[in-house]
Amino acid sequence: MVQGTLLYAQSGGVTAVINASAAGVIAEARARKVKVLAARNGILGALREDLIDTSRESAAAIAALAHTPGGAFGSCRYKLKSLDADRAKYERLLQVLQAHDVRYFLYNGGNDSADTAWKVSQLAQAFGYPLHCIGVPKTIDNDLAVTDTCPGFGSAAKFTAVSVREAALDVAAMAETSTKVFVYEAMGRHAGWLAAAAGLAAQSPDDAPQIILFPERAYDEAAFLAQVDKVVKTVGWCVVVASEGIQTADGRFVADAGGGTDSFGHTQLGGVASYLAGKVKESLGYKVHWTLPDYLQRSARHIASRTDWDQAQAVGKAAVQYALKGMNAVMPAIVRSSDAPYRWKVEAVPLHKVANHEKKMPAGFLRKDGFGITDKARRYLQPLIRGEAPLPYGNDGLPKYVTLKNVPVKKKLPAWEG
Amino acid sequence: MVQGTLLYAQSGGVTAVINASAAGVIAEARARKVKVLAARNGILGALREDLIDTSRESAAAIAALAHTPGGAFGSCRYKLKSLDADRAKYERLLQVLQAHDVRYFLYNGGNDSADTAWKVSQLAQAFGYPLHCIGVPKTIDNDLAVTDTCPGFGSAAKFTAVSVREAALDVAAMAETSTKVFVYEAMGRHAGWLAAAAGLAAQSPDDAPQIILFPERAYDEAAFLAQVDKVVKTVGWCVVVASEGIQTADGRFVADAGGGTDSFGHTQLGGVASYLAGKVKESLGYKVHWTLPDYLQRSARHIASRTDWDQAQAVGKAAVQYALKGMNAVMPAIVRSSDAPYRWKVEAVPLHKVANHEKKMPAGFLRKDGFGITDKARRYLQPLIRGEAPLPYGNDGLPKYVTLKNVPVKKKLPAWEG
Repeated sequence: MVQGTLLYAQSGGVTAVINASAAGVIAEARARKVKVLAARNGILGALREDLIDTSRESAAAIAALAHTPGGAFGSCRYKLKSLDADRAKYERLLQVLQAHDVRYFLYNGGNDSADTAWKVSQLAQAFGYPLHCIGVPKTIDNDLAVTDTCPGFGSAAKFTAVSVREAALDVAAMAETSTKVFVYEAMGRHAGWLAAAAGLAAQSPDDAPQIILFPERAYDEAAFLAQVDKVVKTVGWCVVVASEGIQTADGRFVADAGGGTDSFGHTQLGGVASYLAGKVKESLGYKVHWTLPDYLQRSARHIASRTDWDQAQAVGKAAVQYALKGMNAVMPAIVRSSDAPYRWKVEAVPLHKVANHEKKMPAGFLRKDGFGITDKARRYLQPLIRGEAPLPYGNDGLPKYVTLKNVPVKKKLPAWEG
Repeated sequence: MVQGTLLYAQSGGVTAVINASAAGVIAEARARKVKVLAARNGILGALREDLIDTSRESAAAIAALAHTPGGAFGSCRYKLKSLDADRAKYERLLQVLQAHDVRYFLYNGGNDSADTAWKVSQLAQAFGYPLHCIGVPKTIDNDLAVTDTCPGFGSAAKFTAVSVREAALDVAAMAETSTKVFVYEAMGRHAGWLAAAAGLAAQSPDDAPQIILFPERAYDEAAFLAQVDKVVKTVGWCVVVASEGIQTADGRFVADAGGGTDSFGHTQLGGVASYLAGKVKESLGYKVHWTLPDYLQRSARHIASRTDWDQAQAVGKAAVQYALKGMNAVMPAIVRSSDAPYRWKVEAVPLHKVANHEKKMPAGFLRKDGFGITDKARRYLQPLIRGEAPLPYGNDGLPKYVTLKNVPVKKKLPAWEG
């Protein structure tokens, strides 16, 4: 019997497969007879000592957890600052861990979470408390350093490529007498990874999306509109995929320009697709439709990528193995050894190499004209959307997603005054 | 060998399964040795004598057509007026049919198409031309009379229910520190069928969607905002599904109110979800996200309903059988004999009973407070999203959708001067 308890917490925006990582953690820990607690609503639950006893969940529930989107224990947007600025919080966290004999702390999130896990490990060392802190990667933004890709991205990428291809078939069929231009808004405030993934829908130059707008390139309205017009005149219709983060050359977010005042004089929320659609209609006169998939793109477990799902489970499992081996301040990263055939493995990387770095899209991934992706990008992206992750459906036609019992652990400490 | 050719045309907005009806038509006609032509871009192709020879497509291509969304031969929004007003067009149509020895005209669409097919059958009779006109039902709006449901609706309904359930898991996980209200805009300008289908995502009263807004009920802003606030205070978060067609008591479309002027003084396209999200943010101060799935909801073959897919193929097949039996001016309708177990069959109904009628949602389908559906509605809707329609995927992670060759038939008539 391994000594000590494992605490698992989810952090930041959830994905279609973060629960697959959670299931990987719990299944591996159970196999090794390690007790797993989960923090409710991420690090906030850890600070509040609001912990969940995962041993109360059946094996069937944990198996179903692996194919349930969202964050089963709750997540949060809550960033701990530096050790100096937030010292009381870090110390409280350590107190909670100690009170529940937590020797393994697994934090499932993005850049900030890697940073937090690293700081907690530093503090534990300073206090002489034997704690193994492991980061578990997760983000649809695909912007974590070192790892080849991030669990969550591949499934959102697959949703994007499939949806764009499907919508394009609709637009192509109707273009003569109806919509000629369709604009799809992809998530990605800082990097155009998901917009790039839409490029996988195209097999030849005239295929949709004929135009992709990336935050990596300044948005040039005249050039954009000219390109739309050119595509419509050549192909008969045009599908545009725009990253929410596109900016003009002077650094203004186009999404902010889209907001304004509605016809009643009230605040109108912004949006890149709605803005671009308005421009196309106004300047070119084409009938236009647009979509803002928003959370649908990051929660669509029904169209999850098998590669992504496998990797999400693998990093969860590896995190437990690293912790039990006595490793500390590391994160399981996806390492790619070959594009075709696609080969990957999981390797431990130091958390400080991941924390506070942001992986940008390589310049070589964008076509010279800035409106599409290169073959190099395709070779990188393609394996990430490959395969269909299995999903059981009920007789009601809906996926069988699980709701855990989330039984709380009895508190041992005074309430947190944070 | 049956005498004469069959002409098939697609009309109006396409769906995830209209090509399944086309495949049903072609496969059944092939089995009976009837030659099938298709009109390019719907009735326009028929008027222009722009016809496609479907015999040039392989059996494999027609099999793949059955699972390809969009409209493989092109569709159009083009309504023929009355026989008097558009007499020249109807006569041209008849000339084209005669020139290609078309004895069977199958028109796959909604209300207007049923009306057109009916008129063409009247005209052919008046001219003494032996023509069998069959309407093939199709619309995601589910508003055709007589038929229990319309092919295309069930798949859009399944996309809606699944997407709402998935997004709700995301919102629930993040609500404490992030988005508390999520607004989903469903298609449905005149009737709230798709918004109602979202109600299938809920299994208990606190489940999402906690609020549905229907065009059948006047939009009362104060009551809506009070309900949102109540749900957030009870559940912690709230998912709203709004039909694009909701109107205020004085008959204004809320979607139009949403449009206005952006921060640059230019036209801002409207939208119900964006409008409601803005109101929630402004009035209640909750963080809000919204989605406008737009064409994604009607083209998402990847999450098509098996019931819908089966019915789409069945009405295509039945249409050919009716035509070859010598029936005229009829449409294969779905007739339901039982909710549970769900039992349905296809029966011929006269086109004039379908044409120009609009099926409204029964009043008994809406909850008294107007924010949800009744058990009666669930019993009707549930079987329509049941089952997952099979879909082959390629090694590239994308569905294997087919692009037909669409080889044109040699023209025999002078160009149309329409």
